Amino acid sequence: MKLYPECVPCMLQRAMMFCRDEDDRTKREIMRRLCKLFSEKISKNITTTELAFERNKVIEELMDNRDPMKDLKEESFNAALRVYPTLKNYVEAEKNDKERFKKALKVALAGNIIEFGARDHRVNLKKLEDQIFDVVKGKLSIDDRDEIYEKVKNSREILYVTDNAGELVFDKIFIRELTRYAKICVSPLSRPVQDDAWVEDVKRAKIDESCEIVPRGDFIGIWFDKCTPEFLKKFDEVDFIIAKGMGCYETLVDHPERLEGRIALLMKVKCLPVAKNINVPLGSAVAKLL
Amino acid sequence: MKLYPECVPCMLQRAMMFCRDEDDRTKREIMRRLCKLFSEKISKNITTTELAFERNKVIEELMDNRDPMKDLKEESFNAALRVYPTLKNYVEAEKNDKERFKKALKVALAGNIIEFGARDHRVNLKKLEDQIFDVVKGKLSIDDRDEIYEKVKNSREILYVTDNAGELVFDKIFIRELTRYAKICVSPLSRPVQDDAWVEDVKRAKIDESCEIVPRGDFIGIWFDKCTPEFLKKFDEVDFIIAKGMGCYETLVDHPERLEGRIALLMKVKCLPVAKNINVPLGSAVAKLL
Repeated sequence: MKLYPECVPCMLQRAMMFCRDEDDRTKREIMRRLCKLFSEKISKNITTTELAFERNKVIEELMDNRDPMKDLKEESFNAALRVYPTLKNYVEAEKNDKERFKKALKVALAGNIIEFGARDHRVNLKKLEDQIFDVVKGKLSIDDRDEIYEKVKNSREILYVTDNAGELVFDKIFIRELTRYAKICVSPLSRPVQDDAWVEDVKRAKIDESCEIVPRGDFIGIWFDKCTPEFLKKFDEVDFIIAKGMGCYETLVDHPERLEGRIALLMKVKCLPVAKNINVPLGSAVAKLL
Repeated sequence: MKLYPECVPCMLQRAMMFCRDEDDRTKREIMRRLCKLFSEKISKNITTTELAFERNKVIEELMDNRDPMKDLKEESFNAALRVYPTLKNYVEAEKNDKERFKKALKVALAGNIIEFGARDHRVNLKKLEDQIFDVVKGKLSIDDRDEIYEKVKNSREILYVTDNAGELVFDKIFIRELTRYAKICVSPLSRPVQDDAWVEDVKRAKIDESCEIVPRGDFIGIWFDKCTPEFLKKFDEVDFIIAKGMGCYETLVDHPERLEGRIALLMKVKCLPVAKNINVPLGSAVAKLL
């Protein structure tokens, strides 16, 4: 997705969150350097993902801490674990296969609210159960779940591309449901970036016990030019792909030639540029076959 | 007040609000040019006011519209006018002079919530009466109203330095109260800047009928280096000064030598850097003798 002008202050705001524990001198230097970078990079051609990648490189260069969101990820992980049994029971109480699948998908989608720093979105970990059930019980703005169910039923192997670390707990509920139909390969990031899930987070959520893990790189979304060879091989091999979150939307939307109806995108629309781009209201929940 | 690193994304966010009606090409150019400016200007010595002034010059250079907040100011003005009779009656129902003064001061202070674009603050014009009464009935974090009343009682002439355009309607209630004690000189901006009150706004609120108007310049707050000579003369001549809003705080706090207990500052604390600087919680209402 091409950068919207509105993304600029938001991307700096998010940078401030990454360096919130640094001293003012470091924060100021990060802001100065990022403004310089942005002044050189802002154009009608650059994508959000490219600029975020360059931004993160600058921040990492100026900060010792390579995982500045660790505490917040930990906190969100623990909050999700507290809600986990309720959601697991909610899904398992459903006896009809297709209905259970659709409920589990919505639980994973609802988990996508656990993101920090999106401009028009606030997750409240103290009220996480209520916020999760708001999505689970609410309407989807785009609801391709029936088609997604058919695709999954006819798949032998599925690639599951993760988003934020905290939501893994809810992905786990959906992934367990998916393993009834196919072999699942989970793809997190290769190392910590922002509050996204990386390999260790997946292991911690104990998702690896039933799945293969194939790390995809050190960027937001699915950036084909930078993906690991293992990921690209898997991407081409599998029968179907489930991708989570706005980062995946932002990167996939630029590559319609690689979609071919093989990808289900699950996301909460947490900022106005993405809402405009996909043409749904801000705050929408989307389960879209790309 | 020196620039906090946290001010940087906020100042760009506010710039986006000023150019919200422009096309994407202009918005992008504004963001690019502002990032360049910021990369050159961010230092531990620059003040928020200086950077905002430079920012506004860049925006004005790239936009034809010299008063981009006009619609929003108009809307807030009309919302304030709808609430005006209730607040006027609320103050006038009080028969004790000192109590009426203190209530009127709080009404003017409450009007300071009518500001757009502060990062940690949202005014809801549809619920303006409730939001105003929240402040009017609430506690002040710093409450020097008794001392301010004494100063006003002993003044022959008072200078009243305005903040946002919409809050003039509430200033008018306080100014009417002040005219019981002294001659009032009102100082808005010389031309439209952001959503701040300028000369025409004061006339529109019909405050000029009972007061002299002395425009102070084209910047936020009271920036002594750039004030009009007429304002500076008045500032030195009068017995007492009442200044509204965070902009006045941010500029005055750098000039303790000019305060001398002659200035009452009324503001709602609408962002974290100012809250940190004055050491009160975010969202506080403050009536402080400087």
